[in-house]
This record gives sequence, C-alpha cells and structure tokens, in this order.
Amino acid sequence: MDFGFDARTEDYRKKLLAFMDEHIYPAEAGFHSDGWEPPPILEDLKAAAKSAGLWNLFLPGEHGAGLSNLQYAPLAEITGRSPAIAPAALNCAAPDTGNMEVLAEFGSDEQQKQWLEPLLAGTIRSAFAMTEPQVASSDATNIGTRIERDGDDYVINGHKFYITGAMNPNCRVFIVMGKTDPGAARHVQQSMVLVPRDTPGLTVKRGMTVFGYTDGDHGGHAELVLENVRVPASNLIGEEGGGFAISQARLGPGRIHHCMRLIGMAERALELMCKRALSRTPFGKPLAEQGVVQDWIAESRVRIEQARLLVLKAAWLMDTVGNKGAHTEIQAIKIIVPSTVEWIVDKAIQAHGAAGTSQDTPLAALWVAARTLRLADGPDEVHKRSLARRELNRYRSTT
Amino acid sequence: MDFGFDARTEDYRKKLLAFMDEHIYPAEAGFHSDGWEPPPILEDLKAAAKSAGLWNLFLPGEHGAGLSNLQYAPLAEITGRSPAIAPAALNCAAPDTGNMEVLAEFGSDEQQKQWLEPLLAGTIRSAFAMTEPQVASSDATNIGTRIERDGDDYVINGHKFYITGAMNPNCRVFIVMGKTDPGAARHVQQSMVLVPRDTPGLTVKRGMTVFGYTDGDHGGHAELVLENVRVPASNLIGEEGGGFAISQARLGPGRIHHCMRLIGMAERALELMCKRALSRTPFGKPLAEQGVVQDWIAESRVRIEQARLLVLKAAWLMDTVGNKGAHTEIQAIKIIVPSTVEWIVDKAIQAHGAAGTSQDTPLAALWVAARTLRLADGPDEVHKRSLARRELNRYRSTT
Amino acid sequence: MDFGFDARTEDYRKKLLAFMDEHIYPAEAGFHSDGWEPPPILEDLKAAAKSAGLWNLFLPGEHGAGLSNLQYAPLAEITGRSPAIAPAALNCAAPDTGNMEVLAEFGSDEQQKQWLEPLLAGTIRSAFAMTEPQVASSDATNIGTRIERDGDDYVINGHKFYITGAMNPNCRVFIVMGKTDPGAARHVQQSMVLVPRDTPGLTVKRGMTVFGYTDGDHGGHAELVLENVRVPASNLIGEEGGGFAISQARLGPGRIHHCMRLIGMAERALELMCKRALSRTPFGKPLAEQGVVQDWIAESRVRIEQARLLVLKAAWLMDTVGNKGAHTEIQAIKIIVPSTVEWIVDKAIQAHGAAGTSQDTPLAALWVAARTLRLADGPDEVHKRSLARRELNRYRSTT
Amino acid sequence: MDFGFDARTEDYRKKLLAFMDEHIYPAEAGFHSDGWEPPPILEDLKAAAKSAGLWNLFLPGEHGAGLSNLQYAPLAEITGRSPAIAPAALNCAAPDTGNMEVLAEFGSDEQQKQWLEPLLAGTIRSAFAMTEPQVASSDATNIGTRIERDGDDYVINGHKFYITGAMNPNCRVFIVMGKTDPGAARHVQQSMVLVPRDTPGLTVKRGMTVFGYTDGDHGGHAELVLENVRVPASNLIGEEGGGFAISQARLGPGRIHHCMRLIGMAERALELMCKRALSRTPFGKPLAEQGVVQDWIAESRVRIEQARLLVLKAAWLMDTVGNKGAHTEIQAIKIIVPSTVEWIVDKAIQAHGAAGTSQDTPLAALWVAARTLRLADGPDEVHKRSLARRELNRYRSTT
Repeated sequence: MDFGFDARTEDYRKKLLAFMDEHIYPAEAGFHSDGWEPPPILEDLKAAAKSAGLWNLFLPGEHGAGLSNLQYAPLAEITGRSPAIAPAALNCAAPDTGNMEVLAEFGSDEQQKQWLEPLLAGTIRSAFAMTEPQVASSDATNIGTRIERDGDDYVINGHKFYITGAMNPNCRVFIVMGKTDPGAARHVQQSMVLVPRDTPGLTVKRGMTVFGYTDGDHGGHAELVLENVRVPASNLIGEEGGGFAISQARLGPGRIHHCMRLIGMAERALELMCKRALSRTPFGKPLAEQGVVQDWIAESRVRIEQARLLVLKAAWLMDTVGNKGAHTEIQAIKIIVPSTVEWIVDKAIQAHGAAGTSQDTPLAALWVAARTLRLADGPDEVHKRSLARRELNRYRSTT
Repeated sequence: MDFGFDARTEDYRKKLLAFMDEHIYPAEAGFHSDGWEPPPILEDLKAAAKSAGLWNLFLPGEHGAGLSNLQYAPLAEITGRSPAIAPAALNCAAPDTGNMEVLAEFGSDEQQKQWLEPLLAGTIRSAFAMTEPQVASSDATNIGTRIERDGDDYVINGHKFYITGAMNPNCRVFIVMGKTDPGAARHVQQSMVLVPRDTPGLTVKRGMTVFGYTDGDHGGHAELVLENVRVPASNLIGEEGGGFAISQARLGPGRIHHCMRLIGMAERALELMCKRALSRTPFGKPLAEQGVVQDWIAESRVRIEQARLLVLKAAWLMDTVGNKGAHTEIQAIKIIVPSTVEWIVDKAIQAHGAAGTSQDTPLAALWVAARTLRLADGPDEVHKRSLARRELNRYRSTT
Repeated sequence: MDFGFDARTEDYRKKLLAFMDEHIYPAEAGFHSDGWEPPPILEDLKAAAKSAGLWNLFLPGEHGAGLSNLQYAPLAEITGRSPAIAPAALNCAAPDTGNMEVLAEFGSDEQQKQWLEPLLAGTIRSAFAMTEPQVASSDATNIGTRIERDGDDYVINGHKFYITGAMNPNCRVFIVMGKTDPGAARHVQQSMVLVPRDTPGLTVKRGMTVFGYTDGDHGGHAELVLENVRVPASNLIGEEGGGFAISQARLGPGRIHHCMRLIGMAERALELMCKRALSRTPFGKPLAEQGVVQDWIAESRVRIEQARLLVLKAAWLMDTVGNKGAHTEIQAIKIIVPSTVEWIVDKAIQAHGAAGTSQDTPLAALWVAARTLRLADGPDEVHKRSLARRELNRYRSTT
Repeated sequence: MDFGFDARTEDYRKKLLAFMDEHIYPAEAGFHSDGWEPPPILEDLKAAAKSAGLWNLFLPGEHGAGLSNLQYAPLAEITGRSPAIAPAALNCAAPDTGNMEVLAEFGSDEQQKQWLEPLLAGTIRSAFAMTEPQVASSDATNIGTRIERDGDDYVINGHKFYITGAMNPNCRVFIVMGKTDPGAARHVQQSMVLVPRDTPGLTVKRGMTVFGYTDGDHGGHAELVLENVRVPASNLIGEEGGGFAISQARLGPGRIHHCMRLIGMAERALELMCKRALSRTPFGKPLAEQGVVQDWIAESRVRIEQARLLVLKAAWLMDTVGNKGAHTEIQAIKIIVPSTVEWIVDKAIQAHGAAGTSQDTPLAALWVAARTLRLADGPDEVHKRSLARRELNRYRSTT
C-alpha cells in the first residue's frame, strides 16, 4: 500500500498546474455567456494545450496519451478547477471523451477515420443521445426511440432531450441510442448508430437550461426530434443489440472523470471560501475567525480527502482488476462525490453572500455542475439501491 | 388557543385560489425569460387582480386592504405557489411592498403623493438600494455609501449591487441607504433618501444573475454606481440618522411575507413531486412506491406543517405584541424556512430527473428563490448568532 | 387563530412549575438506579402531587381531571423536563395512562372496579404486553401470541419482550394482546385480555436494558413468557376481535403525551446547554461565545418552537375533529419530534464533554429516552410511509 | 500508488480473522456485565492470543510485534468488530497501549522494568489520568492537578474523572498528568508521574457510567481523588515540564487505533443490519427490499470505504513522514470517523427495532462507543477549529 503518485503523474501535474495558471484562469472572465456555444478563445486554448503536450490525456492506448486511470485521475482533478474551460481546452471534455472511447473500442475502421480522427484532433465535437423526456432514462430498457432496418439503411424515430453539446453547431455527429429489437431480451434490445448533424429529419428543437444556465460555454443541452432519420447500416456501432453493453462500458471511465473533476471543483470552492473568509470582517470579526465558517472549512477539507482517496482507489481497481471488478467502487463514487461537492460549494457560496450566487465568482456555476451530477447517468437513488443489493447478496446464503 | 382561520381569511383564500387557477398558472408558460423585465401580460394580470379585489393585500391600514399580518399570511402563502407572477400581479411583490410600507409610515405628504400613490396604483415599481459589493452588508454599520448635505441638496456617492428590481425600466425610484454622519453612534449614522431613476450620476451598470437566472420576470437585480448624485433635501425619508431604524422596521413584515411565500413554494414543489411520483415507473415500480421517495414526501409534509405554524405564530405575535415582541419568532422563521423549503424543492427536482433542472417545470427557479433567501436580509448564520445570544441571556444572571 | 393558552391551562402551568421546583428536581439525585424499580421516595412525591391537585391530569372526563388534550399538552411538556419522575409522581406515566384510558373506555364495570380504580388511585401499576421478539411488531398483524377460548376461560401462549413497567413488582396486571382468531380478516384477529401478574404460567423472564439503562426508575422493561396462562373469559376487554381497534384508539393520546414530554426534555437539555456554555471557558473563550455552540442553541430553539406548535395543533385537532381527523398530525409529530429532540440532547451532551454521558447530568438518560421513541409504537419509517401514502392519495385521481 | 495490503499484513489478517471466529465471537455472550471489571474468561482469551502469535501487535520496535502503523491498522480494524473483548485479549487495548508506548519511549530503565514488562506480559492493566471534572480538559493548559516537588518526592493533589480502566482492581498503576510549574510557559507547565494504585491518598471514588453502561467489561471509568499523594521523584516520566509533549506524542497512534477499531465496529454493524434486513418481513415485504433500508446500507458501505482509506493514508503518513507530517490527516480521521460510525450503528439499531437497543445485540454498546469517541481526546469541534486554521494559513499571505 502506497499513497504517493508516480513520477510520470507528478510530472504531468506540474505541467498542467502551470498551464492552468498561464492559460485557463485568465480566460475564465471571457467565458461567461448566456449564449449556446463556447467563445472563440477556446480554439487558442486548444492550440496551447496541444503544444504543451496536454492533449487527449484521458485516452489510454495508442490513440491517446497512454495514461492509466490512476495516472489520469489527478490530472482530471486539476482540470475540474475550471470545468467549463480546461477539459475542453485539453480535448478531455464530456461527452466527447466517452464517444471517443466508444469509437476507439467499438468503431469500424471507416467510423474511426470519419469521426474518431477529427474528434481526437479537436476539430469537431460530438454528442451522445440517450436521455428521453417521456421515460425514466435511468432505466435503459425504457428507451422509446426506434431504430429500424430498412434495406441498407437504418431509419430512426424518437425524441431526446438534455443532449449535452448538441446546441454547439460544431457538434457534427450524434451517437443515438434506440431499440432495434423491442421484443428481444431486456439488455439486447438496444443499438447505437452514428447520426451526422445534417441528416434530414434530425431537428435540434431548442436549448434546455440548467438552473437558468445555458451551459453554452461547455456545451449547451438540446432537445432533439428524430423523424424518419435515415442513415446507412454501416453507421451502426458494433453489433445490433449491443447498445446496452456499449453504454455500460462507456460509463466506467466517464464516472471516474466526472468524479475527479468534482474533486477539483471542491478544491476550487474551498480555496475561494478561505480567501473570502480572510478578506471580510462583518461585525468586527473576520469571517475566518467565525466558528461556523471554520467548521465548514474543516468539514470541507476532511470530506475532500476522503472522496479523493475513494476515487483514486476506484481508478486503481479499474487498472488492476478491470471495470467489472471496480463496479462497487465506481458506483460508490458516483453516489458520494456529487453530493459531497455540492455541500462544499454551497458553503463557499454562503460565505460569499449574494456575490456567491452571481456571475462574479465561479461558485454558482460550480454548484449547478455538482448538483446536476446527482442526476446525470442515473439519480443517486438508483445507484444506492443497486449497491445495497450487492451488499445484501453477501449474506443471502448465510441467513 | 385556536388553529382555525377566521372567516375573512377563509373568504380571501377562496377568492385567491380561484384567481390562481384562472389567471396565474395559465400565465406561467409565458413568463420564462432570459431578459431583464417582466412580460407585457403582467399588466393584464394586475388589472384582473384589481377588479377581483385582490390588490395591495399586504398593506394594513387605510392605504391597503386592512388585513392583519395573521390574515395576510395565508394569502401570501398562496401567491408563493407562483412567486414570479402572483405577488407582482397582486401588487404585493418585494421590494415594493417594503418600500410602500416605509413611505406609508415615514414618508412626507409630498413623498407619499409623488411615490406612494403610483406604487399603490401599480403604475410604477421601485427598488431598495442597500447591499454593497465591497462590504459584508449583513452588518449595516459597514455601509460605504455617503450621503452628504450640500445646501438644499444631498449629494450621494456609492456603489451598490444586487439591487432587486432595478433592471426594470419601470422601476422609477430607488430608496438609497447611506451614511450621513459616519462619526455618529453606530446605529444613527445611516439615512435613507429617495433617488429618482433618471437622476444624473446614477448609473445602472449591469444586471446580476442568480445561479444563471436574470430574475427579469420578477425584477432583475442591478449593480448601481452613484457618482455625485444630487437630490433635494426633501427627498430624505424621516430624519437624518434614522436610516437604520427604518430598515429594521421594514424587515419584520418583509420576512413574514418571504416566509409565507416560501411555504407556498414548498407546497407547489410537494404537489409536483407527488404528481411526478405517480406518473413515472422506472424499473417496473412506480416512483410513488419507492421507499426513498415516500420518505421525501412524508418529510416534506411534516416540515411544511411545522414551518407554517411558526410563521403564523410570528404573524400573530406581530399583531398582538408588535414587531419587537415577535423578534425571536421573526428571526426563527428567517432561519428555518428558507433552508427547509430548499430541501423540499431539491427532493422534488431529484424526483423529476433532468427535467427538474430545466425551464419545463417551476422547480429550478423555486430552488434558486429559496436558496437565495438563505442569504437575503443577512445570511442565516448572522441571525442564528443573534438568536442564540438572546437565548443565552435568559441564563446569564443565574450562573 | 389564537396562540395563547387559556386561563385554566395557565393556572395549572403555574402550579405545576412550582411543584417541579419544590418536589421533582430535588428528588432527581436519588433516582439514579441500576436496579429494576423506582426508589421509595416516589410514593412521597405521589402523595404531594395528589394534595397539590396535580393528579390524573391526563385523563379527560369524570375519571380524571377533565382537561382537553390541548389543555393537558403544555402540562405534559413540563413533566417531560424530568421524565423519569414527574409523570409517575402525577400518575400520568406510560404505560399506565394508556391502560387507564382503555379501561375507562372499553372496560366492564367489574374490570374498572378491580383494575381502573387502584390505577387511578396510584396504588398499583400496569403493563401493556404487545411487542414480541420474533416478529416486526410495528405490524400488529404479525403478532404470534395465541389467546384461545376454552370453556369459560381464555388460555394464552406467547412470548413478549420490551414490556415496559413489567419489572416493577407493583405492576399487578398486564393487558396482553394476542390472536383469538388467526383466520379472521387482518384487523379483527386480535383481542386484549387482562392477566394478573400472579397468574400461573406467566413468567417475567428477565429485564431488558436500553443502551445500558435498566430504566428501573421509571419502569424496567421485561421479557415475558406465557405458557398456558389461564384467565376467566370475563377478562377480555371489549369484544373478541376488537384488539386492533382498541390498540389504535390507545395510540393517539399516547403519542401526544410522549411528544409533549419530549418537548419538555428538549427544553431541559437546552437550558443545561446554555448554562454549561456560560460556565466553561476552554482556550480562553467562553463556550457561549463559540459560533458552533451558538449555532446549536439557535437551531435548538427554532426546532423546539416548530415542534411544539405542531404537537399543540395535533392536540387541538383531537379535541375538535377527533383522533381520526387528527391522524396526519399525530403521525407527523410521531415522525418529527423524537428525532428533533434527540438532535438537541446530543448537542447538549457534546457541550458538556464526558460529563454529558455520565450519571451526573440528566442528559444521557434524556438522549436514550428520545432515541427509543424513534422506535416505540413503530419505527419512524413505518409512519413516514403511511403518511406519504395519504399525501399521494390526494393526487391519485388527478393524474 | 497502490491500494493492496502487503503479504505480512494479509498473513496476520487471515490469522486474526480465524481467531475472531474461534475465540472472540463465542465469548461475547459472557461479557455482558453491569459490574465494573472484565469477566474471568478474558484471561483464557489472552493465553490463546499469545499462543496464536497475536500479541502486542500495536507496538512497533523490539518491545512489540514490529508492525508499521499501516500494517497494524487493518488488524486493529478487525479487533474493532468486538471492541470490548478482542483488543484486551490481544493486549492491544486502550489506555494500556498508549501507556506502554509512553513507557517504551520515555520511561527510565527502572520504570520499564517495573511497569512496562508486566504490561507487555498482560499481567497488569494501567490507566491514564488526565481529564478533570472542573475544567474543559480538551485544553490541557486548564489542568488543575498540582504535582509539587518535596525533597526526593512529588506530592500530588487533584481531582480526576472518566479515568478509563481505573475501576478494574488489576489496574495497578496510573500515569497522572498535572502541573509542576503553573508559572511556566503554557506548554511546559505539565508533567507526568507514575502513581501505583495503592499509594496512600489516592482514592478511587466511584465508577462513572456512559449512557447507562459501566463499561466494566472493557475498563470501567473512575472518578479519582488525589490528596497529598506522595511518590518518589524517580516516578517522573521524562523531564519536568515534558508532560504536554508526551501527551501529544501519545495521541497520534491512539487516534489511529481508535479510528481503525471504529471501522471494524461499522463493518460489524453493517453486517448485522444486512442480516436483520434479510430476516424480517413486516407488512409483507422483507426489510431488505425497503428502499429506505437499502439507502442506509448503501450509504454505510460508501462511508466505510471512504473512512477506511483516510485512516490508512494517515497510518502511511505516520510511517513515512512522521506523526507531525501526518497531523492534518490524524486530525481529519479524529473528526470524521466517530460521527460516521455513529450514524451507521444508529441505522443498524433502527433496523433491529427495540432489540437493537438491548443487551441482545452488540449494537447499543457499539453506538455508545462511537458516540463517546466524538468527545474523547477533545470534542470534534476543537479539532475542526484547529484543522480549519491550518487550512486558512495556506492563504494568509496571498490575500
């Protein structure tokens, strides 16, 4: 047992921390937006990241930087300190990361050439269209979208919403999840197909706000309507009926990434809370001397330390025993990290007064990001139930 | 001891509930806005409320409907079910209500004629400019804005932010709090003056967002700069040095109103949570049968019942022993109601999944409204400390 | 709506507060016991209460003091400040109160003469034998004890535990709940019979501790074994199959009483917390000046005020619309009050350091009393589920 | 970074787990006691542990098993599953462990021969007399006990309470903390002296209960009075004025041990909760299928995993950078682990109903143990304040 980072990780951390100071934090002021797409400066940041060797760090293997999950995790944490900018600048932003993983693992040569290459190069963005307005999407077997084979094509009909990134015109392709065989066994009904943005019948109907934010700076969420959308059969990813399995494979790394970035968000909030507490003196006593504020700061530090270790252990397990062996720990961090970070950011906001809710600090947006992750990829409650059942199973035979 | 409403209250409740059904809820869809001012339909709603006899209910005495706090409280609760629309439609919205109370109690005849009358008639809006960006405004003695006598005028210099309603061009007058005598005793340094919107030197610099919302539909918050703003000395409200006392008098009813509306917000959220729970069936079991969702619903009901009673008792005390005698209870509801309601709305959002964070339900906006009230008029922590000191004082002589 | 007590209540409150000062608090030191029955001084206290006119206050109607629930509630609160002594001294202690109510309402003349009269006179105690070790007793239909008719007798076989008061040798009679007809409809299988302590076949097997306490001072809990216990058929209370209905009737007032006493327990804990905070000065600053301790005190005060009002409203409803009409409110206080008071007592303990866990303050015993009431009469979770279902039912037809 | 145990640890874990099954759990039933000292069977268990090579595992270096903190931590966790028995059986129980550490590091040869050797052999027990009834002992500078030099002796006068283990007649020696020089600088006023139990003037006045428990089975807590207690000057441990420093050195390992055992307590509680949930079926549905119970189980698992990792990291830091370098992490686990485990045990109790509060499961006693550790060695609040100050110091120069 050893709690130190290896040399390669330390090296990347140093480089990335410097990059944050030099490029990312100074760009933050320009990112506030009530529009639906990132500001132009993002392209400059991407160029800078590429030339600094901080590009595609998330992706193991030949296509990416070749880091293990355990090596990437502390770097993802650092990008989480400025989550609307840094991940996108380093080409490590959701949902593209998951989509690149899917294409790298399950895509045909042709699919990789057409879509993976420009995604890896950062010239286009992509979206993952799974959630639907009419059903509880935490249960993938509920999905209503139909993907029907018609000659050499698939014809898609469905209704999707909260499709992250889809509002960005540079989002050129959607991975659409739907049912190819609703009569099959529960977990082989679904398939995934690639749908280019300009395909007739695909309508980006409107942007969805999140607690008032467009989230345009890091990928506005769209409502999509698909009416008789026709794509070639070769746009199928993997096999028919393989959609559920691919979506599960996609989730493991995605959750690690989200959770690591959340740790960085919490560190940012704690830093801002401390600085604020040292700079304000209501009623003749600095906030930093108020017992309640000290309590928030101590609790925040302790909770961050706990959460980070569990995320790192999950990453280590993914590297050593695989995503399946890390199932409980991945679910555990999905359960605990968003709510923990939400709590910390809330306290930082409280310490800032009204300013904490405004566009003048990153805090309100950080809070919304953390809050939303209690829902994304299935609400906490679904994951708790599943984890509890596995825990109970350990004793089923013995009672 | 009697927990029933009186006949007049019941009568108004019935009328108001019908008005909500007929006019307010149907108008909600048209109120979503990322602009900075209410939609034109608000004027129609105001006309309808006036003709329904639901106008200025908040104001006791001859100027208003003549209801006691205890009679008005359950009505304010009902308007809280649609807080961006109903209070404004009934001319019962903050900050105008507090401003009208101030003018009715402390305004000169001339001030009442010029400003109170159009406010009571609903033809103009107003703002209350107290909070400042550089200081902890929960401590009024921190205020940096200067109001200096110069001949027959006052000259004002200062910097304000989060001035609710000020983004609305129909907001014609600001009550500005500043120091007329920084060398005086702590609570007689401050004064209030009326500053018409068009006064030279007054700049509405920008709108402040709240968790991404402009709050334009119910009164966007502005940053103001006052540079050598000159108003006649007759614009002083009450006496020089009376600003702190007036601001305290203004707070009591304001807090009751906020808290009653919060109860209504919680009822709305609970209703939406129940309806959602009955309509969704993930993993083969209705949400309404899930133990965790039932727990949220039961906790919500219990917390609402507790909170409502305490607000009503505070109102009763204000009516029977005055604002001072109700001090502890007013502070108690300021402490407990916003966080209670925030918790309930959070659960309702969680039961809705992504939709709960969007513009498609009132929930995200309700959450922001509740969260913000943990900060408005001083953060919870300031009020807790003050209440604790009074509690401790009961035992100081005995130990 | 009126939040003031009536004159009769105020009069009793004054008398009772004086009685607490003169008789109850001074007796507390002598009540610490690791034995299984109350100390002899209790009989003196009972005599004093009788002569002070503070006797059987809990019982409405001719048999008791004739107070309404709303009038008795604030008096029960005061006895809760010393819950191991005051209720017993005033002949207002559970489980005897519930048993007296049952006998007064459902008992035959003979039963009233034999058992109700000495209970009202305070010369004997009684117990209520419902809970069983093998089943989840929160579900009365689970009960395993059999009561079988045999000629003019009933023969009882069963196993009971946590039978409060049964360890006291002066507990002369048990009301035993069991099934007379296991094949009947769910809620008419149960009956109640009176079983004198000395009946052959009834064994008081052992005392059950509660977090280490014997609870002997206010009625040690026993495990009972009933083997072919034979009583005359005239010992049946009410009718065969009426057991469930009687047990439900018994619960309403019982819960009000428990909850009112809990409010008094919380007031006692808060008083002790304040006094401690004023008297200790670690690290050069009085506890009373520590922000975290102030937060506890303020939260405690606010939560007590909320909880008390809800209990009083439940009492008012019982008086005005009956136990059934007060169902939701009775369940609500059962859900919220024990956990609220547990929280407050926990903080008072924390402010006392190690002493708070010892026999030197009432706090540890108060905590155990509050904690246990999260379980007694069914765990909170059962009541929450039931309350949630009623809340959901309001919307079932509308969706 | 590596989250696996080393081979030696795995080997000891296997041996210890087998020992728990064979010796400890079967002995539990015999340990319930309302007396003040452990039952005789403890001596058999000690012999068995010795012969199994499971003895003095806590002590690094030549005197003990030579394990690092990181190696011992998972073993301490296992003993925590039966905290009243296993630690004592393995001669790894507080307060003796801390006392042995002090004697091993600071004791003279003579002191080691007289007291360390029998303690290591397990033939006697010891106590650590620091806490005092009149002062907030979390602040060591408050200590009132005087240790005065008189010729070749020290004369001690003072009043101590909650001295763990002192009720056990086999507790033969007390390490007494007091002030040798009240006029010196704050942290060099205190000294520690060894006081044999039979020294004239030392009175073990009474046992102190903890939430009703005598804690006799694992070392009843005593109130001590020291009146002109005279010991040879050679009984001083280390140097005059060194008491505070020794007490700080003693705390680091002590906190790790407590926290590791707490993790084991939580695992035990979670196991019992799962088994209970699988075995009870109120209202026709197994507890294990109730959403709220599943939520408890999932939360418990996640919180345990987080807490364990933070404790292990603290142990690793103590081994690699020393107790000082591990300061923040040691404080962090002291803050978070007791309250976390208290929460888990509370839920396990709730799932058991009344039985969970009784002597029939270990749960009530586990709860008391966890609750008490929120107070022992200073209440959480003191540690939070201290940790917050260090966190704030990181930013003091930068703002």
